[in-house]
Amino acid sequence: MNFISDESLKKIVNDKISGSTELLGLINLYFRKNFRDRQKSKDAIKYLAHHLGTFPNIQNYLHDLSPLLGTTKLTEKYFKNFDLKSEKLFDNIFNNALPCLTDKKFILTISNSRTVFEIIKRLSKIQNLYIIVCESRPKFEGRQTAKNLARENINVRLITEAMASGYLVNCDCVLTGADQILKNNNAVNKVGSLELAVLAHYFGKPFYIAADPSKYTGRIRFTQRKESSDQIWKNPPKDILIENKYFEEIPNKLITRIITNKKARQKNK
Amino acid sequence: MNFISDESLKKIVNDKISGSTELLGLINLYFRKNFRDRQKSKDAIKYLAHHLGTFPNIQNYLHDLSPLLGTTKLTEKYFKNFDLKSEKLFDNIFNNALPCLTDKKFILTISNSRTVFEIIKRLSKIQNLYIIVCESRPKFEGRQTAKNLARENINVRLITEAMASGYLVNCDCVLTGADQILKNNNAVNKVGSLELAVLAHYFGKPFYIAADPSKYTGRIRFTQRKESSDQIWKNPPKDILIENKYFEEIPNKLITRIITNKKARQKNK
Repeated sequence: MNFISDESLKKIVNDKISGSTELLGLINLYFRKNFRDRQKSKDAIKYLAHHLGTFPNIQNYLHDLSPLLGTTKLTEKYFKNFDLKSEKLFDNIFNNALPCLTDKKFILTISNSRTVFEIIKRLSKIQNLYIIVCESRPKFEGRQTAKNLARENINVRLITEAMASGYLVNCDCVLTGADQILKNNNAVNKVGSLELAVLAHYFGKPFYIAADPSKYTGRIRFTQRKESSDQIWKNPPKDILIENKYFEEIPNKLITRIITNKKARQKNK
Repeated sequence: MNFISDESLKKIVNDKISGSTELLGLINLYFRKNFRDRQKSKDAIKYLAHHLGTFPNIQNYLHDLSPLLGTTKLTEKYFKNFDLKSEKLFDNIFNNALPCLTDKKFILTISNSRTVFEIIKRLSKIQNLYIIVCESRPKFEGRQTAKNLARENINVRLITEAMASGYLVNCDCVLTGADQILKNNNAVNKVGSLELAVLAHYFGKPFYIAADPSKYTGRIRFTQRKESSDQIWKNPPKDILIENKYFEEIPNKLITRIITNKKARQKNK
């Protein structure tokens, strides 16, 4: 299953920028376009399950889609339901975020989280916002977040991670997504998030994490995923070591609240 | 005095990467090469005083060199003295650093400081070191530091600022240079330094600043220098704001010790 000629599928699998919720959105678009070609869709399901099966939300999506393929009516209904469920999920998360964010104007974030985007988009309809986005080295996916927010006419400023303290001290809170929430309620998110959590703690600002239920992986331990050091420095002198760590663990004690779609999952503070 | 045809002088004036001690070293090399051409040297002094006169060490150097120009013997003696004084200065700073660093193996730094380099170079002769260097966005001058250290056969690892927490937690201390030390003993240094100071505080690691006496500017307040936003993102969408702040102030309470050439200037802890 490593051979697949479809470039758009390869792009999804090799996308190191998007979170799993964002990826699932792209996967859904792919099948909407291609579901009438049953064999192609079946191959795509196998390919995606092989490469992205570790994300529970993607695994569930593929599992439920598989038996419907070939039945146009049922498949179209599945897509429609997917959209409705997504909207409802983000509405629910937003409603739970609202008590935390209702007095927040200057919000700092990092990386590219669909959930954070959906919250901020909804919040911007009811209050004036200034969003500060860390560029998110090494892959700069913060730029994508900044673009998405600017497209919604939200005031947005892009900074480097190095500049974070200078901006955080004047922000109302930090809001990030999550790659996963571990069993002990520690969060795993894009590298740089722990630094923001420590800075928020030091400057007395709330640090919120937004996570849809698929992020609760039930895992006990976080295993680091290392990526190519080229992303940090192409062709460095050979004696200089470079490790490219993508994610890091944020201890629960530094998280003011994990905002999800269920009220029960929130910490009571 | 804005017109000067000498490319190597322009390079020094436009160098946004090096600290003032490093710049002075480059200026000294320039005059060593060109001092026999008296008119050229006089023009260079005016040009440098105009553009870099805010650095006290450079101002003093130019002031003392000026009357000697044309007298080969005296000028050569001046250069020789400059080298001896530099070596002695770094030796003194190193000797004052030694009590802090004698048990430190894993040291984290940022940006490109000549003083930090000279300390680490000397320390590496007497103990095994592992230096972690932040790349220092947006201009990546940490890469130059990493290269300089690797050339001295010192173990060196380059990281992004976003990765700092993950490494700092396992480091023995942070050691940075300073752009200036204010009258209240707050330090001004490359953006990212405040974040390292807060992280060091949180993880219970000492945060040292090394500064030669020229860095004591006696100024009461730090004025931000803003640089081109292109360095952060070339041609971003027009609605995205970008400010490129080069330096930031680190409150003295976050600094474990300012290491300088004089014992009296050190904080007694």
